[in-house]
Amino acid sequence: MKQVPLKDGERINQLFSTDVKIIQNREVFSYSVDSVLLSRFPRLPKRGLIVDLCAGNGAVGLFASTYTKAPIIAVEIQERLADMAKRSILLNGLEEQMQVIQDDLKYLTNYITGSKVDLILCNPPYFKVDKQSNLNESEHYLLARHEISTNLEEICRVAQQTLKSNGRLAMVHRPDRFLDILDTMKTYNLAPKRIQFVYPKVQKEANMLLIEAIKDGSRDGLKILPPLFIHEEDGSYTPEIHEIYYGN
Amino acid sequence: MKQVPLKDGERINQLFSTDVKIIQNREVFSYSVDSVLLSRFPRLPKRGLIVDLCAGNGAVGLFASTYTKAPIIAVEIQERLADMAKRSILLNGLEEQMQVIQDDLKYLTNYITGSKVDLILCNPPYFKVDKQSNLNESEHYLLARHEISTNLEEICRVAQQTLKSNGRLAMVHRPDRFLDILDTMKTYNLAPKRIQFVYPKVQKEANMLLIEAIKDGSRDGLKILPPLFIHEEDGSYTPEIHEIYYGN
Repeated sequence: MKQVPLKDGERINQLFSTDVKIIQNREVFSYSVDSVLLSRFPRLPKRGLIVDLCAGNGAVGLFASTYTKAPIIAVEIQERLADMAKRSILLNGLEEQMQVIQDDLKYLTNYITGSKVDLILCNPPYFKVDKQSNLNESEHYLLARHEISTNLEEICRVAQQTLKSNGRLAMVHRPDRFLDILDTMKTYNLAPKRIQFVYPKVQKEANMLLIEAIKDGSRDGLKILPPLFIHEEDGSYTPEIHEIYYGN
Repeated sequence: MKQVPLKDGERINQLFSTDVKIIQNREVFSYSVDSVLLSRFPRLPKRGLIVDLCAGNGAVGLFASTYTKAPIIAVEIQERLADMAKRSILLNGLEEQMQVIQDDLKYLTNYITGSKVDLILCNPPYFKVDKQSNLNESEHYLLARHEISTNLEEICRVAQQTLKSNGRLAMVHRPDRFLDILDTMKTYNLAPKRIQFVYPKVQKEANMLLIEAIKDGSRDGLKILPPLFIHEEDGSYTPEIHEIYYGN
C-alpha cells in the first residue's frame, strides 16, 4: 500500500466488497450509501470516458474503478475535497485511470471539448436553497448538500454538452425532487430509461432514487426497476446491501 | 338479493373483502387487480362528488361505494359495459348513491357544469395505438385497452375542467407510460402528490403504477409510497393482496 499523507481528522475507510480505500474526514465529507449505490447502478462502459460530477472525496469514481478499465474524471469544486480525492487515487494506485478536475462543473467544456463522454455519474446536492434551508452547517457540507454552487439545471446542461449521442447520465437523488429532475432532464433532452426507488425499509416511503437517462433518447421504454430496501425490520442491512458493503 | 337479469355469458362475481357483487362477462370485460387497487388507493371523500372515468362494468365505483357515502358517477362510453354497470348498481341496491353516464368522457361537462368534482378515479386504456398495436381483439377489449375512444390528454383535460380546486385525480396505469402521464398532467396543471409502484413479485420490474394528482397543486412534496407486490415467489398472493381480495 502506498504511503499517502493524511491531514488532521482524516482516516482511511474501505468498502469491504472492494479493495478501494478512501480518505474520509467526518468534519468535511464522508461518502454514504448514496455513493455506493450510484457507482453500481448504471452499466459501466468497458472503454470510453466516465465523468463523476459533484465527486466530493471521489468515492463514486473510486468504487466504479473496480468494475471498469475506462478512464474516470472526477469533477469537484471544493479544493479540500478534491485534494482528498487526489490522494485517494494515489493511495489506490489509480493515477493511470483516474484524475481530478477541481473546478465548477459548468466549466467542464473547458477540459472536455466536444461530445465524448460515455457515462456521467452524479451525486449532486439534494436540497433547494430556500427560506426553510438550514444553512448553519459547515461550509463543506453546505456546498455538498445544497444547490449553492451548482444545481440540476447546470448538471443536465453540462451532461447534454459533453455526453456522446446515446451517452448516459446516472444520478442519485431524493424523491421529493423527482418532478424537478424529470422536468430538467426533458429540457436538456435527456430521456429517462431506468429508475430505481430506494426505501429505508419495507412499508416506508422511498427516500432515495437512482435514475439513468440517455442523451437524445426516445421518451419510450422507461423501466421501473425492482425496489431496493436498505434495512430489515430489525435495523440490520438487507442481504442486497450487505453484499454491496461486505461482498458475498 | 335483488333479482337482476343476466345476459348471455354473464356471471356475478364478488370481491370477498366486500359485499359488492359485480356482473362480469369474460368475452366482454372483467375487472382485474388494477381496478381493485385503484379503488383503494386515494383517500375517498366522505361527502362530495366522485367520478369514475373509463368505468367499464363499474367495478372501481362499486368497490369505492363500500368506503364512502359520497355520490359516485361512472362514465363509460360502451353501451354493453355501461349496461352491465347499471345492472350491478341495481343488484347491490346502490341506485341512491351511484349512477352511470353512457357517453364519451370528453362530454362530461355536458352533465357536470362547473368545477365540482372532489375525486376522479380512472383506469384508462393503457396502450397507445401505433403500428405495433395488436388490434385483433374483440371490440370491447380493444376500446378498453387501447387509446382509441379516449386518451391521457382527454382524461387530464376533463379532470382539469371538472375537479374542484384541490380536487384529485387518481389513476392506475403502466410504468412505460409514466413519462407521458407526468407530461400530460403538467400540461393540465395536475400536480402529482402520491405515486405507488406495483410489482408482480420481488426482483421484478414494476408493471403497474398508481398516481394521485391535485388540481392546481404545487409541484413540491411528491411522495413515493411503499412498493406493492402482488405475488409471493411461489405465485400465491402476498398478505396485502390477499387481504384486499378476501379480507382479514
